[in-house]
Amino acid sequence: MFGVTILGNNSALPAYERHPTSQVVTLDEHLFLIDCGEGTQMQLSRYKIRRGRINHIFISHLHGDHYFGLPGLITTLGLMNRENDLHLYAPAALKQILDLQFSISDTKLPFELYFHSLETEGVIADNAKFSIECFKVYHRIECWGFIVREKKKPRKIDKEKIINYDIPATFYERLKSGEDYTTKTGEVIRSEDVTIPAPPPRSYAFCADTMYDERIVEKLKDITLLYHETTYLKDLEERAASRYHSTTIQAAKIAQLAHAKNLLIGHFSSKYETLDEFLVEASEIFPHTQLALEGCTYLL
Amino acid sequence: MFGVTILGNNSALPAYERHPTSQVVTLDEHLFLIDCGEGTQMQLSRYKIRRGRINHIFISHLHGDHYFGLPGLITTLGLMNRENDLHLYAPAALKQILDLQFSISDTKLPFELYFHSLETEGVIADNAKFSIECFKVYHRIECWGFIVREKKKPRKIDKEKIINYDIPATFYERLKSGEDYTTKTGEVIRSEDVTIPAPPPRSYAFCADTMYDERIVEKLKDITLLYHETTYLKDLEERAASRYHSTTIQAAKIAQLAHAKNLLIGHFSSKYETLDEFLVEASEIFPHTQLALEGCTYLL
Repeated sequence: MFGVTILGNNSALPAYERHPTSQVVTLDEHLFLIDCGEGTQMQLSRYKIRRGRINHIFISHLHGDHYFGLPGLITTLGLMNRENDLHLYAPAALKQILDLQFSISDTKLPFELYFHSLETEGVIADNAKFSIECFKVYHRIECWGFIVREKKKPRKIDKEKIINYDIPATFYERLKSGEDYTTKTGEVIRSEDVTIPAPPPRSYAFCADTMYDERIVEKLKDITLLYHETTYLKDLEERAASRYHSTTIQAAKIAQLAHAKNLLIGHFSSKYETLDEFLVEASEIFPHTQLALEGCTYLL
Repeated sequence: MFGVTILGNNSALPAYERHPTSQVVTLDEHLFLIDCGEGTQMQLSRYKIRRGRINHIFISHLHGDHYFGLPGLITTLGLMNRENDLHLYAPAALKQILDLQFSISDTKLPFELYFHSLETEGVIADNAKFSIECFKVYHRIECWGFIVREKKKPRKIDKEKIINYDIPATFYERLKSGEDYTTKTGEVIRSEDVTIPAPPPRSYAFCADTMYDERIVEKLKDITLLYHETTYLKDLEERAASRYHSTTIQAAKIAQLAHAKNLLIGHFSSKYETLDEFLVEASEIFPHTQLALEGCTYLL
């Protein structure tokens, strides 16, 4: 399972029961929280997402609607007697804020909180199953996007074909990694004849808050699911630019230029009570578009 | 109208759709916000309370469940282009936190934010209609309670009696303030014979988070409505003391000692899914007790 669950899809001013930005990316047993607007911990409860399983939190920038829920979530994890390490990736100044708040409240966390400052583009977390990169986007203050990539999986044994050969099961793992098998008689059985290639690795990109800027496209090439903000409809392109935000058309163009497979749009201005027009406008340019709706999970 | 509307009645860990502490006291056209846990701005929207009319905010202490909603609320008031002054009364260190957050996010508020540090007990806000006092309560860190008092109102004209006398209407205001009227023939008409005394001024006390401590009683004498926390039921008296919190019985005893007219209990631990037992236990000692329920307004 690889998917993203939307906890908040609204821009700074909460409205119409929509919340500020927060998303949970699930990659099998790993949960990644991206941004943490006010109320995120309540949204996690509402949608039955187990807070305790989040080990990595990514904060794109330090406008309040992207992190004001973080001190509360961290405090709650402490009150729940969490023991696992928690890794936080964010602009450096967030550490000052948290240190000050926790020192004033005399809060001692029962777990290790590792703070990773975002400073240069590239891989910030990596293991056998996934890698996570950060990249610069273009907003009024320092702001980062994130890409979650699953690692290429090994080939799978083709059960229908392998029964035709006498290969010991102990060799299966090596076949799956591409190695050929040589029988006692010297016959070579090629890995590709008895295995099926794994599907290409999937990837999710979160472009945070950003104005339209084609410099981000090269980071997003062939992304499986691209989240791009669309604070405004297309008629407010000037207002979007003046506030370092994007429109429907601009988000769709980025998806098109990046050859993304699918586009997810969010960060809707509180000007708009209904959202249908966002989907209509973006889909005209990029048909594989979906609205980021709170409580919904979008599979990759 | 003098009443308090509960926005959050839970202790630190949000649970069962209950929110961290926040209350709005309404005294005619004045709205006072007391504490501002995470999600307060959404609760204000949910219960249709006009954020823009709040000119005074009081923060009891700097545990996150009493103020993590404040930076978001202030940011939102700014985005709504508020122009009126906002007065904030809180422990001094809150100013450091807000200054740091707003400087990092490059937030410029379009209104004046006056920060008043809580340092000594006594009156902190005062005008013709109300006065507000702060007093010390006893929690793990510096913590303050607040009392909102309406001012004594003038006497009212007794319409049935005043028609028996020839008193010019221009003198009515002076009669209401207690002055007697002397007719041209030298007859003295006493104010109290043609006016009705105003009801005694009402008062609301918010005791924040506190352990049982009778030192607060003298501040609370004859209070109309007393809010006292009851984080735990009576069987957890030891746990309550170790965490600087109170039980049902302790809240009720304070109300009894203070000769309060009514008691409102809240700040329920997330241990408890249902709250009926809180009411049962407190009412045994102090019958005029009510549970602080979110969205409900308690009139004085």
